[in-house]
Amino acid sequence: MSVKIGLVGCGTVGGGCIDIIHKHAGDFLRHLGIDIELVRVCSLSRSEAEMHGAGDLFTDDFHDIIEDPEIDIVIELIGGTTIARTVVLEALRAGKSVVTANKALMATHGQEVMDLAEEVGRELAFGASVGGGIPIIGPLKHSLIANEIESVMGIVNGTTNFMLTSMAQEGMTYEESLANAQALGFAEADPSADVDGFDAAAKIAILASIAFNTRITLDDVYTKGITSITITDLEAARDMGYVVKLLAIAHRTETGIDVRVHPTMIPTTHQLATVNGVFNAIYVVGDFVGETMFFGEGAGAGAAASAVMGDVLEVARHIQQGIAPIVGCTCTDDLPIRTIETLSMKYYIRFSVADRPGVLASMAQIFADHNVSIHSMIQRGAKEDGSVDVIYVTHVALESAVREAIDQIALLPDVLHGEPSLIRVEE
Amino acid sequence: MSVKIGLVGCGTVGGGCIDIIHKHAGDFLRHLGIDIELVRVCSLSRSEAEMHGAGDLFTDDFHDIIEDPEIDIVIELIGGTTIARTVVLEALRAGKSVVTANKALMATHGQEVMDLAEEVGRELAFGASVGGGIPIIGPLKHSLIANEIESVMGIVNGTTNFMLTSMAQEGMTYEESLANAQALGFAEADPSADVDGFDAAAKIAILASIAFNTRITLDDVYTKGITSITITDLEAARDMGYVVKLLAIAHRTETGIDVRVHPTMIPTTHQLATVNGVFNAIYVVGDFVGETMFFGEGAGAGAAASAVMGDVLEVARHIQQGIAPIVGCTCTDDLPIRTIETLSMKYYIRFSVADRPGVLASMAQIFADHNVSIHSMIQRGAKEDGSVDVIYVTHVALESAVREAIDQIALLPDVLHGEPSLIRVEE
Repeated sequence: MSVKIGLVGCGTVGGGCIDIIHKHAGDFLRHLGIDIELVRVCSLSRSEAEMHGAGDLFTDDFHDIIEDPEIDIVIELIGGTTIARTVVLEALRAGKSVVTANKALMATHGQEVMDLAEEVGRELAFGASVGGGIPIIGPLKHSLIANEIESVMGIVNGTTNFMLTSMAQEGMTYEESLANAQALGFAEADPSADVDGFDAAAKIAILASIAFNTRITLDDVYTKGITSITITDLEAARDMGYVVKLLAIAHRTETGIDVRVHPTMIPTTHQLATVNGVFNAIYVVGDFVGETMFFGEGAGAGAAASAVMGDVLEVARHIQQGIAPIVGCTCTDDLPIRTIETLSMKYYIRFSVADRPGVLASMAQIFADHNVSIHSMIQRGAKEDGSVDVIYVTHVALESAVREAIDQIALLPDVLHGEPSLIRVEE
Repeated sequence: MSVKIGLVGCGTVGGGCIDIIHKHAGDFLRHLGIDIELVRVCSLSRSEAEMHGAGDLFTDDFHDIIEDPEIDIVIELIGGTTIARTVVLEALRAGKSVVTANKALMATHGQEVMDLAEEVGRELAFGASVGGGIPIIGPLKHSLIANEIESVMGIVNGTTNFMLTSMAQEGMTYEESLANAQALGFAEADPSADVDGFDAAAKIAILASIAFNTRITLDDVYTKGITSITITDLEAARDMGYVVKLLAIAHRTETGIDVRVHPTMIPTTHQLATVNGVFNAIYVVGDFVGETMFFGEGAGAGAAASAVMGDVLEVARHIQQGIAPIVGCTCTDDLPIRTIETLSMKYYIRFSVADRPGVLASMAQIFADHNVSIHSMIQRGAKEDGSVDVIYVTHVALESAVREAIDQIALLPDVLHGEPSLIRVEE
């Protein structure tokens, strides 16, 4: 007897899932002995289901799926943390297993939905919530479990990586690259979730929770987006042998978990430096495996649908074989989270300052007063408003000290023209 | 009750497994609920076990492990296809699950051992047989199963990649780079399995079998090693914007599976081009997921032990939960293998030829007679023996035609000085 699937949410990823089922259901049965059948598709409009040849399965009420006793697995692809949360919780309570690509839900209500899944003895799979089609949650939960993971670090947002690549390689301004990404369908009309870093923050919260066996939520992640990055910053970085990427970073340290998202300068020789455009890559370091990296398309209908359907097939295989959920929540430890103020690293700081005597001396004195040692300083030519760009790269310094120094420089009378730009450096 | 492990083979990888168990057994229990215990270690000498603090578990007779009714999982790490095959088959017959890193065994006797595992209802896991610690077999068998895989291609032999990197970056000759690799412990005294490509061939046979759901054995893989690669070839490739890597390649084509190992020119912009030293990387293309790449340490005690113990923990988890093997053999199709003579691609061909009038004209005529169209030709300065290097890069041409042309050029009287060098080009 086939395992019955109900799909809630028929946008690009949901459409991709239908396409996979139509193209490969016969292969799944022949190769893997897994017999799945899509029996219901919930979406806002019938035309979305019709576009993928599933008009006859259409409903606009998700209860038609949750209350259908035949359905074994519910795929949740509507996103967000309101209706999606209801769908997932009600589906589990109705005894169905759930597959979701919803990173926001998992990064905020992960504990709640996983607890319920365990309580009702059903599976909750969310492999598509991070990295599009890149297998990363699977490897972290299986192949790599013999390791103590030291770091998980990556480019996990395709939109911002596409924008930064356009700015660095084609000299576009931030505004031009955003408009371009929107025109190409890589950025949404309201791009905040991407450009402000929240999408990446949700993803690193999920990855870090699995990697370090401790619950990390979206609120735990220091998050800074790319909105203040300028071409000047990218060019200066390039001249120093670096590229700027929006990195999601999580390190295990002796005093807790360091987890954050921000624009980051990495050496051009780093494996992540050549990951361009909409591609994603996630770098994992374990105590025995050493360095590993997982690369692929981080977005797009096909890639995300591949991950969703990989989960669906795995859950369906377990249902067919009568296997109870194998892997539940693995957040057994309760490790402290380090606030960013307590971290020490290198910093790139660009100030637009008044071009007059004494300014550099005052700034140098303030850095010295805060124990921030400067590795290099570059001054770039005068601009129309009479200001010059002064760029510092620090030695390893304490974040709180760097911030205090910047605040104090901002207080110098008539010195700063606009906000300083701060980019953290990861070697 | 703990799941009992017997280890057969206590070299570097086996020692790494013992180290992982000693360091992390408590973590596995706390994080994953998996309780494993190493109860017996078989090796040639007690000192190997003692080095890893397991002298009290030592035996030099593998029957002590196979005949011990307490033992649930046997780890086979002795390698080769003779005693190792006996150990694996006898362990399965004794009702134990088996974890092996043995690529030669899986690429030659894979069918036999997997059939027996299915017959006796035990698990046979071999995730460490390809790519050292890189999770690749797991993703192919789980996360990526919703795809029809189109290509699997990679750098899967660390020794030869280290040698080619040394030759390209430090100008070492083949002989120097081999001696260097041997001195550093990256190559064995008898380097044939690595430099002649057989190690890579076994690995691509395993990957292709899983990716294409069809049994491919070592004998099916066209295999050419790196022994005839010279610095001249690497320099010429670099000048043309390429690097030379020993690639293991498997493509699904309309008329069968194309599977081979040979030195390959790839553009410097390709993701695999920057994989240097002992690192490995495997590139997978699926019809929905698009391009993905998996990168990491392809060799070394820790990396391989990470993969072995990942399998051990997964099998132990199943044993604890009373789950029968979930994934058996997936080679359900019987696809034809394409011989290399039937393939068409681009070729780099270097001839050392006599430096006299008419030679180039004769060679050009022979290529034309065989329908091999030339994309570019470079002649490099005269050498001490009076010969010159003439390097052709062809347009896409049929392998058999290229070979016939080369054979015919070899028949030209007093033209060739030494063997021509042929490197296939993958764009």
